[in-house]
Amino acid sequence: MRILLDNISIIPVSGSNSFIEKGYLLIEDVFIKELGTGKAPEGEFDHIIDGENQVLLPGFINAHTHAAMTLLRGYADDLPLMEWLENKIWPLEAKLTPEDIYWGTMLAIVEMIKSGTTTFNDMYFCMDEVARAVELSGMRAVLARGMVGVGPESEQAIEDSRELIGKWQGQAGGRISFRLGPHAPYTCPPAYLERVMQLSDELQAGIHIHVAETRVEYEDILKQYGKTPVSHLESLGLFQGRQVLAAHCVHLNEEEIGILHQYQVGVAHNPESNMKLASGIAPVPRMLESGIAVALGTDGASSNNNLDMLQEMRSSSFLHKVNTMDPMVLPAYQALEMATANGAISLGMGNELGRLEPGYRADMIIMNLKEAHMTPRYDLLANIVYSAQASDVNSVIIDGKIVMENREIKTFDEQEVLAKARETARKLVGK
Amino acid sequence: MRILLDNISIIPVSGSNSFIEKGYLLIEDVFIKELGTGKAPEGEFDHIIDGENQVLLPGFINAHTHAAMTLLRGYADDLPLMEWLENKIWPLEAKLTPEDIYWGTMLAIVEMIKSGTTTFNDMYFCMDEVARAVELSGMRAVLARGMVGVGPESEQAIEDSRELIGKWQGQAGGRISFRLGPHAPYTCPPAYLERVMQLSDELQAGIHIHVAETRVEYEDILKQYGKTPVSHLESLGLFQGRQVLAAHCVHLNEEEIGILHQYQVGVAHNPESNMKLASGIAPVPRMLESGIAVALGTDGASSNNNLDMLQEMRSSSFLHKVNTMDPMVLPAYQALEMATANGAISLGMGNELGRLEPGYRADMIIMNLKEAHMTPRYDLLANIVYSAQASDVNSVIIDGKIVMENREIKTFDEQEVLAKARETARKLVGK
Repeated sequence: MRILLDNISIIPVSGSNSFIEKGYLLIEDVFIKELGTGKAPEGEFDHIIDGENQVLLPGFINAHTHAAMTLLRGYADDLPLMEWLENKIWPLEAKLTPEDIYWGTMLAIVEMIKSGTTTFNDMYFCMDEVARAVELSGMRAVLARGMVGVGPESEQAIEDSRELIGKWQGQAGGRISFRLGPHAPYTCPPAYLERVMQLSDELQAGIHIHVAETRVEYEDILKQYGKTPVSHLESLGLFQGRQVLAAHCVHLNEEEIGILHQYQVGVAHNPESNMKLASGIAPVPRMLESGIAVALGTDGASSNNNLDMLQEMRSSSFLHKVNTMDPMVLPAYQALEMATANGAISLGMGNELGRLEPGYRADMIIMNLKEAHMTPRYDLLANIVYSAQASDVNSVIIDGKIVMENREIKTFDEQEVLAKARETARKLVGK
Repeated sequence: MRILLDNISIIPVSGSNSFIEKGYLLIEDVFIKELGTGKAPEGEFDHIIDGENQVLLPGFINAHTHAAMTLLRGYADDLPLMEWLENKIWPLEAKLTPEDIYWGTMLAIVEMIKSGTTTFNDMYFCMDEVARAVELSGMRAVLARGMVGVGPESEQAIEDSRELIGKWQGQAGGRISFRLGPHAPYTCPPAYLERVMQLSDELQAGIHIHVAETRVEYEDILKQYGKTPVSHLESLGLFQGRQVLAAHCVHLNEEEIGILHQYQVGVAHNPESNMKLASGIAPVPRMLESGIAVALGTDGASSNNNLDMLQEMRSSSFLHKVNTMDPMVLPAYQALEMATANGAISLGMGNELGRLEPGYRADMIIMNLKEAHMTPRYDLLANIVYSAQASDVNSVIIDGKIVMENREIKTFDEQEVLAKARETARKLVGK
């Protein structure tokens, strides 16, 4: 299969803000074969896309989410964190069946594709269903079964994780990979994390964990273990010799930033979730300065309330500008890099995803530049990061396959998913 | 002319978050005649809109912008404020001809209509052209010729303002109104503001002014006059007996919040512009608590970079939640009220705009609820404020006239405007 994208602007996100004003990109099978300025090479192609007035860029990598929670969008808002979790979210989650999780994940996948996300890093439960949804939809995902190290579920979580990794690791042509998902240092005691680490080494699987999301967690861990969360995890050896993605990292001291950098821990920043839940503002400019390739995530839809990475880029740039009182902080290109290349690096896939370069996996999106809010066009990057909206995403290619073309999803029936999601939501609240 | 909106959800923004799940609204001429739950009244209608899976709400009121600056979108980003203004924005603005301003304003109007804004409060120059654009497009606007009280333009600004108000006040069936636009306390010395106040009294025209946007301004005014900006303006008598809208109000002390409340000064909060330019975070929750009906604005597109009031609602809620570390601050309904009813109140039009009530002007928008990011629908308000995007705005009615239907602008040729705006932008940068 050879797809030619022709006559198109290209932002490769290859370490600088330079881009191709008018060029071409050739996909062969699942890989990017070549790209360049000017005229496309002669040859036979299975599909040619004309990119007049459009721009091609790497698909967004949502580095931290709970896809199936899209089913809970708007179910509980504007509440204190613990009331939100304990009285609203957890009781509803307890009702979710595997089928609900499947449709909730499919709903999230519709939304992600339609807003330009091509890979998501997920932590939830019933992950067999999530993997099925990823396989069918054409999405790429890194999945983890959430593991809470106390209570009756803790053993089950270990068994499930072993089984899921055996079954799904590298499936769907490599679009699916699995990690272990110890929920957080405050829900996983050291002895349990020890077992997670053993399993990680045995199965050669990375780790996805929430770290230092709230001030309360930071202080509780400090009180309980005499160490702040990142230092505590380091002292347990969690970061040593394995790929770890730490979500949030809102409350960090300078020493902890050094630790994250030293062990090349991936960091997923979730600006909108952190704002909406009033968790705090992560020291992102300091992390970037120190050399950490900070990635971006939406977190679950119940704390966002959407899965829109364009909004996340914009919010990250704006939030850190005002928080540091420096308008030069986090310029457009850096926000775009966080949503693409840094996402890949954070997930240990920096050599195959997140950039448009020969040999990379063919995950990319085509954005429309024709609307009023994208006019005029002095600065393509600024228009994309500061002004674009999800509806500007015209087409989406994942692993060399056209998953959406001119806003029509090609791999499954979008309307069926929306109908099933509505039905599931009605059932959950007993309507 | 009688328009019936039938079979539609309605959020009237009438002082509470209650809404009509399924109902109707009848427009007669330029007014809302009646609305209610259930079945519409029998009768003859010139136009019937079926609102299945859609929601009707008041059009957004953009309480502070510089519409024609849309021509400068993305021209200069991620720069320190003074370098941005002095080396980039002002030199380009100096080149703008009246015709450029016309097309720039029309470009802004396209973007505003397509994102649900029905009224904008503008301050710029060549306001004759801006008024022409408003008249032709079917928009509603409050316009002010920017007045800088030092330098050769200061006299001209007074003459122009007098002439513009004579010519345009109340024109286009009342869709156009004019105010005086003294730029800011730091650009308008007391003697000049004195003359503006006299003119305001003579012409019975309100005032639109920037106040306390940056920390530097706050400190400069304090140093120069021994008073902080709001106190300084109060001591000059600016707020006494006239309608004043103060844009920004980022840097305020408690006493100044009291002054703004006491004189019922309108306040336009511009969260995204204040974030992007790193101006600071306005004490909005405190202002709301004290009883000020804080409105929302986008500011100009060069510091935002779009004119999207949905994003502004979302950002205002999220920003103040994290800034106060309280997730209950600025819930969805309050953000929606800021973007609608409070906008009208701030502009002295609280009895005719900003709500859907019988007797109010028929300014409203219809939003689509069908997309994945609006699914499921536990909380209509949360979905609109926290998850919707501009492309969900389906139709726009201003002053009883359908200005956009199913995303097609009815009152002028959108494509001509985009082409002219692109041409103007190319000319400005000499390409």
